Amino acid sequence: MVKRVDNEPLDPILSRAWAAGPCGVFRMTDAYARAGVNIDAGNAAVARYRDILGGGRQAGQLDAIGGFGGLFAMPGDDTRALAASTDGVGTKILIAAELHRYDGVGRDLVNHCVTDILVVNASPLFFLDYFATGALDPEVAAAVVRGCANACAAHGCALLGGETAEMPGVYDAGHFDLAGTIVGVVERARIPDPASVTAGDAIVGLPAVGMHTNGYSLARALIARDEWLQPFGNGTFADALLAEHPSYYAAVRAIQAVARVKVMAHITGGGLLENVPRTLPPNVKAVFEQTRWEVPALQAELVRRGSLSVEERYRTLNMGVGYTLAVPIEDAAAAVAAVSGAKIVGWTETRVDGEPACIVHPARDDA
Amino acid sequence: MVKRVDNEPLDPILSRAWAAGPCGVFRMTDAYARAGVNIDAGNAAVARYRDILGGGRQAGQLDAIGGFGGLFAMPGDDTRALAASTDGVGTKILIAAELHRYDGVGRDLVNHCVTDILVVNASPLFFLDYFATGALDPEVAAAVVRGCANACAAHGCALLGGETAEMPGVYDAGHFDLAGTIVGVVERARIPDPASVTAGDAIVGLPAVGMHTNGYSLARALIARDEWLQPFGNGTFADALLAEHPSYYAAVRAIQAVARVKVMAHITGGGLLENVPRTLPPNVKAVFEQTRWEVPALQAELVRRGSLSVEERYRTLNMGVGYTLAVPIEDAAAAVAAVSGAKIVGWTETRVDGEPACIVHPARDDA
Repeated sequence: MVKRVDNEPLDPILSRAWAAGPCGVFRMTDAYARAGVNIDAGNAAVARYRDILGGGRQAGQLDAIGGFGGLFAMPGDDTRALAASTDGVGTKILIAAELHRYDGVGRDLVNHCVTDILVVNASPLFFLDYFATGALDPEVAAAVVRGCANACAAHGCALLGGETAEMPGVYDAGHFDLAGTIVGVVERARIPDPASVTAGDAIVGLPAVGMHTNGYSLARALIARDEWLQPFGNGTFADALLAEHPSYYAAVRAIQAVARVKVMAHITGGGLLENVPRTLPPNVKAVFEQTRWEVPALQAELVRRGSLSVEERYRTLNMGVGYTLAVPIEDAAAAVAAVSGAKIVGWTETRVDGEPACIVHPARDDA
Repeated sequence: MVKRVDNEPLDPILSRAWAAGPCGVFRMTDAYARAGVNIDAGNAAVARYRDILGGGRQAGQLDAIGGFGGLFAMPGDDTRALAASTDGVGTKILIAAELHRYDGVGRDLVNHCVTDILVVNASPLFFLDYFATGALDPEVAAAVVRGCANACAAHGCALLGGETAEMPGVYDAGHFDLAGTIVGVVERARIPDPASVTAGDAIVGLPAVGMHTNGYSLARALIARDEWLQPFGNGTFADALLAEHPSYYAAVRAIQAVARVKVMAHITGGGLLENVPRTLPPNVKAVFEQTRWEVPALQAELVRRGSLSVEERYRTLNMGVGYTLAVPIEDAAAAVAAVSGAKIVGWTETRVDGEPACIVHPARDDA
C-alpha cells in the first residue's frame, strides 16, 4: 500500500530538495533512516523554511509548478519567464571519489539540472558550478568541470561561471562536493498547467539509466565498498552505480512535436510517489502499472537486499522510470513512437478525498 | 614590493574564485600555504579550466568584466543582460559552526553575491542557496536560510529556491557548507567599461566590516580556537571574525547618483592587489596610499601574528577596503560625501610595460 502524498498547492520553497528526496512534506518508512538520512529532520527543516519564506514573495516571483524549478518574470517581457534550479549530486560523489571516476558527476549534475527545469518547459541558458574540496587536486577539479562543460555544450548552454573552493577542515583531503545552478527561459504560455490534467490521460515514461542522483546513501548502505568492483550485469556494481544521469531534453522535445504534453515530472528523490503528484490537480491521481516496464537490475538488487516495501522502493528509487509526461490518451501512441524506450507506464484517474495522489501496482512477483 | 598581477583580457572562467582568492593566475608568498591552502593547485586548476572552456563559448555569453560575475544576453532584449555569480563563504563557516552562530553566514553569502554582480552594475533579481551538511539539524538549516532570506529581502531579491542536502560521509555531523547563486539584471549600456579608466582618476574606497568571506583559513591558523571567545576590541575575536559582509548596493547607488563611476571592484580573496587590476585597462595602474584609511584591528592583528609581508597582507586580506570605485578626480569629493565612511584611498597612474598593475604604499609604521 502506498500512502497519500501531500498535494497542496506548492510554493517556491518546495523546489528545495534533499539528497533523500524532494521537499514535499512526506513521511517515509525506515529504509532511508537505516542508511543515515533523517527524513523527519528534512520535513522539520521544510516546515521552518515555509515559515521563513511564507510572507516574503518578491516582485517578479511566479508560482512554481511542482517545485522542480523556481520561476521568475523576465524583466521587461511579459511573455517569458526565467526558470532556475540549484541541485547537487548527493552521495554518488563518494563513490566517484573512492573510485577516482570524476567526469561523470559533472554530466550527472548538469543533466539533472537541465531536466529539472525541463519540467516547466524551460530551455537552458546558462549554468554555474560549485566545486569544493579538502585539498585541491587540479586534475580532479578539471575532470569534474570538464564533465559539466561537456553536458552544457550538448545543450547549447553556457558554463557561465563557477566557484572552486579549497576548504581544509570542512572536507577530507580526497573528498569533494559538487552543486550547480541552472537558469533557463520559457514562454509563459507554454508553462505546463496542472489544471489541464484530467482523469483518463496516459502517462508516458522515459527510461532511467541507473539511479541518477538519488538513493545513494541507501545504495552505499546495501552494497559494501568491497563489492563495488565485483561483476554485476554487463560490468561491475561501480559501473551500475555510476551510470550517468541522462538528459531528457531531446526526448521531451521530440514527444512535444507529436503529442499534446500536459504536465511532466522528473523522477528524482521521492520517486514516482513524490514527484508525479506535484504536477497533478487535487482531483486527479496517477496510477502506475509496473508490469508495463522493466525494473533495472540495480534497483531490483537494492529492493531485494533492503527488503524494501513497495512504498519504500517507489519513494526512494526511480525504479526504472526517469521522467514522466501526461498526454491525452489519443496522443499516447504517437508519443511513445517518437522516442526509443518510451512506454505508457500509467494513466490518470479521478481521485476522491482521502485517496492517495499516486498509486503503483507492483508486478505480481513483487507483491 | 608588490608583484605584477596578470591583467590580460579576462574570460568567464575568471569568475571562478577560490576560498584563497579569485582565480586570476597569480602567485602568493607562503602565508596561505602555511594555512593549508594550495595556491599552486588553484592556479593549475585555472589553467585547466581555461583549456576546457577555451573553445566553448555559447550564444548569448558576453564578455565578463573582471570576472566578478558572468554576463549573458537577455533573451529577446538587446538592451539588457543577465549577470550571475556563484560563491561560497569559505571556512568562515567552520567558525560559525563551532560557535553555533549560524544566521550571519546566510547574510554573508547573499551580500557577497549581491556585491559581486554590483561590479558589473547589476541589480539582483533572485538567489538560490545550497546548504549541505552531515546530519541535518532543522534549526541550523533554518537559521542559515533565514539569514539568506533576510539579506535577499533587504535587496528586494527573491529567494527563488535552494537545495538542502544531508550527506553523511561527506560532511562531519556538525559541519556544513553553504554556497549560493545570484542572478541580476543590468542595462548593457551601463556595464562599466575598463577602457574608460585613465590615469588621473580617483579611487574611492568603501570600508570593509571585518574580513568578509576571505582569509579564514589563514585567520584560523593564526587565531587558535581557544582564543575565539577572548576579548578583542569591543567584543571577542569571534565577534570580529564573524562580522558580517555588508552589502555595498545602497552605497554604490548613492555614489552613482552624484558621481560618474567608471569601474568598480569587490575586494574579495586576492585583496586590492588581485581585484582592482581586473577592471583596469593594460596601460593604467592603481596606486593606493594606506595612510588614507584605517586598517581594522583584526586585520592588523593577523598581519602582526603572521608577520605578513606587504604583498601577503594586500593579496590575502581586504585590509579595511571592501569595495572600490574609480571616478574622475572632479567627482571624488561628491562621491565620498555621499556615503558615510567612503574615502579617497588611491588613484590611477599611467602604467608602462613590466610595471605592476596595482601598488599599495603601506603606512610608514608598516614598512
